[in-house]
Amino acid sequence: MKVVELSGGVGGARLARGLAAIENLDLTVIVNVGDDETIHGLSVSPDLDTVVYTLAGLEGPQGWGRRGDTFNFNDELGRLGSDNRFRLGDLDLALNVYRTDRLAAGEPLARITDNVRRRFGIVPLILPATENPIRTEVRVESGDWLSFQEYFVLRQHRDEVVDIRFSRAVESRPAPGTVDSINEADVVIVAPSNPPLSIWPILAVPGLREAVAAHPRVVAISPLFGGKALKGPADRVMRSLGLPAGNLGVAKAYQDVVDILVIDKGDAVDEALIDKMGVVVEDTLIKEASASTRLARAILGL
Amino acid sequence: MKVVELSGGVGGARLARGLAAIENLDLTVIVNVGDDETIHGLSVSPDLDTVVYTLAGLEGPQGWGRRGDTFNFNDELGRLGSDNRFRLGDLDLALNVYRTDRLAAGEPLARITDNVRRRFGIVPLILPATENPIRTEVRVESGDWLSFQEYFVLRQHRDEVVDIRFSRAVESRPAPGTVDSINEADVVIVAPSNPPLSIWPILAVPGLREAVAAHPRVVAISPLFGGKALKGPADRVMRSLGLPAGNLGVAKAYQDVVDILVIDKGDAVDEALIDKMGVVVEDTLIKEASASTRLARAILGL
Repeated sequence: MKVVELSGGVGGARLARGLAAIENLDLTVIVNVGDDETIHGLSVSPDLDTVVYTLAGLEGPQGWGRRGDTFNFNDELGRLGSDNRFRLGDLDLALNVYRTDRLAAGEPLARITDNVRRRFGIVPLILPATENPIRTEVRVESGDWLSFQEYFVLRQHRDEVVDIRFSRAVESRPAPGTVDSINEADVVIVAPSNPPLSIWPILAVPGLREAVAAHPRVVAISPLFGGKALKGPADRVMRSLGLPAGNLGVAKAYQDVVDILVIDKGDAVDEALIDKMGVVVEDTLIKEASASTRLARAILGL
Repeated sequence: MKVVELSGGVGGARLARGLAAIENLDLTVIVNVGDDETIHGLSVSPDLDTVVYTLAGLEGPQGWGRRGDTFNFNDELGRLGSDNRFRLGDLDLALNVYRTDRLAAGEPLARITDNVRRRFGIVPLILPATENPIRTEVRVESGDWLSFQEYFVLRQHRDEVVDIRFSRAVESRPAPGTVDSINEADVVIVAPSNPPLSIWPILAVPGLREAVAAHPRVVAISPLFGGKALKGPADRVMRSLGLPAGNLGVAKAYQDVVDILVIDKGDAVDEALIDKMGVVVEDTLIKEASASTRLARAILGL
C-alpha cells in the first residue's frame, strides 16, 4: 500500500512515526519548507529536520530538535553579540551546517534530504514540498509582514495573524518525486498540522495542490481538540484569518482538496461539517508512538 | 611604546600574551592567514582564533582551540558522512559560523576580527595580514601540492616539504592598519613561529615585507631549541627546503628582513650566524605566561 503524508513539524512527524511502524507500507512524507530560514548564514529547515529526527527516534522532548542536545555553540554565539534566540543545539547544528554546505556546493535539497534520511537509517522517503525558497510570512495587526520564524520563534506567536502569504510560491516547482508519489498513492493523508501555517505552504506550490485535489482519497486529521490546538496557534490563526471556529474551520481550510476529515472523539459532528466533507471520529491524540500507529491503522482501514 | 608582533598560531599567541601583560605597551598583532581554509562551508582562520583565544585566556591545553570545548557537533557530522578529521569544537564553531556569516554579509575580515577581539575583552589589536584569501600550499615528495590543512592536520605533517607557495599572495593587499602599525612601531617582533609556514605567508603580502624590511628594529625569536622545534615540523620543513640546520636556517629564512635574532640559552652562537645578523641569547621557552612576559621584557630592553 502506497501512502503519502503531507506534514508540518511535530504533529506530522508523530503521525509519520505511526505510519512507519505499519508493515508493508510504502510511505512518502512530503514536508513543509515554508518555515525554512537562513539563520547565522545556515539553511535551517525546521520541519524537515523534525520529521528526520522523529523517524530516527532521536527527537527532543518537545517533539523538535535533538534529545539530549547541548547548546554550547548557541550560548557562545551570544558572547559574539549574535541574536541567538533561535536556539540551535550542537547536534542539530551538524545537520544544518551539512545542508548549508551541500546546498552551496550545488546539491539539490531533495537529494541532500534523502542522503540525511539514509544516514539516519530511516526507511520512509522524506521529500521537501519544493526545492525553491518559498517562505511563509504573516501580517500582524500592526500591518507588518513577519517572517515565519520571527512570528513563531522570536515573538512566540503572540501576534494576531490577519493575513498570510507564501513568498515566491508562485514561481516554485514541486520537488522531484512529490507529484508522482501523490499520483501513485492509495491514500494521501494530511497530518494534524497547522492548516494555514504548515499545510497551505505545501499546497501553495503550483502542481501540488492540483495533484492532491485530483486524488480520490485524501484524508486530513484535524489538529483541534475541543476547538483548540494542543500547542501552537492553529485555532487562533484560523479564527483571525476569518475561518469558522473548530473543525468547521479546518474543513473550510481544506475545501476542494480533502475528502475525509478525521476529528477527535471528544468533538461534535455537526451538520455544517458533514455538508463539507466526509467526517470520521477517532482518538486523534498521537503523542505516543503506539497511539499514532493505532490512528494510522484506523485511517488506512477507512 | 608601540610594538608590532608578526604571529603564527600557538607560539605567536603565547608571546602576544606575554607582551599584553606589560604596562603602557601599545601592541598590534599581525596574524598569518595562509592557514585559513573553508571547512564544511565555514571560513576557518586557525591562527587568528588561536591568538584571540590565548589573549582571552580561553585557549585549549594544546594551545589551540577552546579549553573545555565539546565535540558534539563534530561527532555528529561523522554520522552524516562528512570528513570530520579537522575537529571543530562546539564553542570554537560559534566563532567560525559568526565569521562566515559576517563575511557572507560583506563585512571585511579585519573588522570582523576587531569585533571579535572586543567581544572577548582583548586590549591589543589583532589584524589579519591580509583580507584576501591567500593560501599556503606545500609540495611534497610525490610532487603533489597540498593545502596547508591537508598537509598539517589531515596528514599530520608527515610528508617532506620540497617546495612552498602562497597562492594568490601576489594579488593580495595588506589588511587596513598593518603597514601603518609597522611604520609607527618602536619595534617589530617576529614570533617564535614556523618561519616558512607561518611567517613567510605574512611577508608574502606585497607591502608587508617591504614595511618590515624597512623597519630599523626587527627582532625575531627562533622557534628552535637545540635545532628542533618544540612541536610542529619547523626544523624538518626548513631542512627539506634547503635551509641550513638550526638557527642559521632561521637567520637565512629571515635574511634582509630581521635585524636581531633571539636564540635559546641552550643554543650555540656560531660565527656564521653572527655574520648574518645580531644575535641575542635568552630563555625562549614561553609556555607559561610569566616566562612569556619575561622574554617580552628582555626583548623590549634590547
